[in-house]
Amino acid sequence: MGGKTRLLIVGGVAAGMSAASRARRQNPDAQIVVLERGDWISYAACGLPYALGGDVPDLQESGWEALVARTPAQMRARGISVRLNHEVTGVDARAGTLTVRDREAGRTSTEAYDHLLLATGVSPIRPEWAVTDLAGVHVLKSIPDAQAIEASLHGARRVCIVGGGYIGLELAEAMRARGLSTVLLERGDDVAGRVLDDPYRALMRAELERRGVDVRRCQSVDGLHGNAGRVTGVQTDAGRVQADVVLVAVGVRPNVELARAAGVRLGRTGAVAVNARQETNVPGVSAAGDNTQSLHRVTRRQVHIPLALSANRMGRVAGVNMAGGDARFPGIVGTGIFKVFDLGAARTGLTQGEAEAAGLNTVSVDVVSTDHAGYYRDARPVQVRLTAERGTGRLLGAQLVGAPQSVKRVDVVAALLHRRANVTDLFEADLAYAPPFSTTWDVLLVAADRLMRQA
Amino acid sequence: MGGKTRLLIVGGVAAGMSAASRARRQNPDAQIVVLERGDWISYAACGLPYALGGDVPDLQESGWEALVARTPAQMRARGISVRLNHEVTGVDARAGTLTVRDREAGRTSTEAYDHLLLATGVSPIRPEWAVTDLAGVHVLKSIPDAQAIEASLHGARRVCIVGGGYIGLELAEAMRARGLSTVLLERGDDVAGRVLDDPYRALMRAELERRGVDVRRCQSVDGLHGNAGRVTGVQTDAGRVQADVVLVAVGVRPNVELARAAGVRLGRTGAVAVNARQETNVPGVSAAGDNTQSLHRVTRRQVHIPLALSANRMGRVAGVNMAGGDARFPGIVGTGIFKVFDLGAARTGLTQGEAEAAGLNTVSVDVVSTDHAGYYRDARPVQVRLTAERGTGRLLGAQLVGAPQSVKRVDVVAALLHRRANVTDLFEADLAYAPPFSTTWDVLLVAADRLMRQA
Repeated sequence: MGGKTRLLIVGGVAAGMSAASRARRQNPDAQIVVLERGDWISYAACGLPYALGGDVPDLQESGWEALVARTPAQMRARGISVRLNHEVTGVDARAGTLTVRDREAGRTSTEAYDHLLLATGVSPIRPEWAVTDLAGVHVLKSIPDAQAIEASLHGARRVCIVGGGYIGLELAEAMRARGLSTVLLERGDDVAGRVLDDPYRALMRAELERRGVDVRRCQSVDGLHGNAGRVTGVQTDAGRVQADVVLVAVGVRPNVELARAAGVRLGRTGAVAVNARQETNVPGVSAAGDNTQSLHRVTRRQVHIPLALSANRMGRVAGVNMAGGDARFPGIVGTGIFKVFDLGAARTGLTQGEAEAAGLNTVSVDVVSTDHAGYYRDARPVQVRLTAERGTGRLLGAQLVGAPQSVKRVDVVAALLHRRANVTDLFEADLAYAPPFSTTWDVLLVAADRLMRQA
Repeated sequence: MGGKTRLLIVGGVAAGMSAASRARRQNPDAQIVVLERGDWISYAACGLPYALGGDVPDLQESGWEALVARTPAQMRARGISVRLNHEVTGVDARAGTLTVRDREAGRTSTEAYDHLLLATGVSPIRPEWAVTDLAGVHVLKSIPDAQAIEASLHGARRVCIVGGGYIGLELAEAMRARGLSTVLLERGDDVAGRVLDDPYRALMRAELERRGVDVRRCQSVDGLHGNAGRVTGVQTDAGRVQADVVLVAVGVRPNVELARAAGVRLGRTGAVAVNARQETNVPGVSAAGDNTQSLHRVTRRQVHIPLALSANRMGRVAGVNMAGGDARFPGIVGTGIFKVFDLGAARTGLTQGEAEAAGLNTVSVDVVSTDHAGYYRDARPVQVRLTAERGTGRLLGAQLVGAPQSVKRVDVVAALLHRRANVTDLFEADLAYAPPFSTTWDVLLVAADRLMRQA
């Protein structure tokens, strides 16, 4: 090792690879080793549902490498050592060592570090009923998961998706795009339960139903049916759903086993607690990415909202700091965006429901406008709910549903939320107008105008 | 008149009608009269080039009413009196009266006001060579202008557009959409000269040329050629351009004659000077809309940038105040957006060129990314120039060129500019990401990241 600082990074996807790249830039001399228990690094996990739905054309030619941003060879060329199929099985934070098992070679070794980054991500939750030997039952988190689903879909006609969050909804679109009969089971009273308020959830469900997804709400899964080692259906409290393939998308849990073993404190969310430098309570140990909680700038509370941009940003901050620099994670404002078929949805800040749950005195307005001038061809509706604090007029959040590209304007509110702006700041913004791009008063301005008069 | 406040509004398009509506809401008792010298009120002037290009489907069925937001009858139903074809020919601000000529009846009358709003807009500039009796030479500002162009294009094959600003460019697209041979003459060294910096202007020109517009730069018009009372060509300093129709789009000038007659002070821009309440120096006389200058929040200077949102906003402010309320115009940040064919462009704040001209010590970065995840179908390039003040990192402006919908993200920077944010504020924003909507790091964040390191 000589006198070089040795940085070990556990996990080679979003946060881990961002950290490695930033650490390298910050300290050209540091020794940087990424330990990844799987076969793949630096892949776009968010792209997996789309790949299954045929929205990644390069998949035909390049295979799953189409989703890989940087290969191990490219990382090595930048002086970052990447070890695939290396699983960290133990940690001694006082000694500053990891126990690492090379899964291919079957060897275990001890690796010393000066600074350790836990970028261990999340794992999909498998409810008890989904722990099965039956073929055809899948979660979707990694490329091997997607490969297994792809293989499983061969010859399948009926798919049952369990869970109506981001991934369940994206999978529903993908399965319909493949021409499969698709049932979506949602335990709660509507899809997108943790993302949007009720009326906006209903709009997304209507689009799913319009495109042939059989959405069944308020249904809990009791178990699976199988025949000859293969799943044949899902048993719910309301009956039986025939299915050749079952996709389980009921949420994720942070991978915190290693953190626990290192004596790292977890937060009230169950994810790793860190300071703004991504440092844990254990000296020399940082955490970043989906396994880590983060500050919500609107509520000032710690939250666990695993999303790709946050993961990359945390990794970047951790990488700079591990390598001797000084960077701070600014927190998040809970921005999210997704689409089903030809309808997009986005949210930032707090929904009305979340704001009320946080004990805030809130007021919301709902506005329907068009994504661009109504007279210009192909104008489509866009609906906005804008939420503020009653009395102060402080912006709390926005939700949009409409033509996919139209909902990206959520970013305007997201940027303002970072600066604790109020609704007048939004109303006064000089937003871009021309007939193909928006109404003269952009729908966000219309909403702000109404909200100003009520907040 | 009894005891009712009498509000006279000169001009019935964007600012005038916004003012009338707001004044009515503010004061249900006021007598509100809109004097419009033309045949049409409340029409979407910005839609005219698109209407000529076939992008307003309802035009087939409804005629030019397709571009009218509110008819005189609808205004009357709200208690707002609208007098079409009424031209204001004189003003006595001390007496509080206007001289008004009813152009249809040929009568002149005197109208008293308690408060007067000048919402007289702009007129297209007609250079000396364009003042002609030849048929087939047009400007485009009003519905009658568009009707005249429509009639003129009947049987035409070759069109020459003079001027490469917003309207000239939109007309070029419209003429090509009609299958016409189209020459665009630009006096300056490239199109969009007052809108974008050089490299971004070149991108827009390339799209025009790709779609068959013959763009001729650095060419001044010397005169017109005609035959039998109809235009046949344009003589430039570089030669002759054959044309059956000539569209003159070389800019606009504010209509300030009435303001001058009322003793109203003009600003250094040549447009009417007002305070934040849209009040002129003459008591009882306000001004709003394209005839009025406005505060640029980035430079803190008065500017004259006639655009629809500003006009509507000024009208609204003027209307509230005239009717006894209190509203303030927040200023603008110079946001603009347009497209040619399948390429959009947007800008906000200052271009690098404008910032330098304003004496600011600036630094810019140029970034090329894709509008959404590169692996997701139909990803297209989007280019961003982000400009900040060197030393302080204060954001000064952004320019974007890319797929039309992708450049609307300029609004994020526009909203931040209003709050005098710096580049770190942009970088830290929690912008929306999913593969169909953006790259993990949105192109704006990538640009902010690079700019932070240089500013």
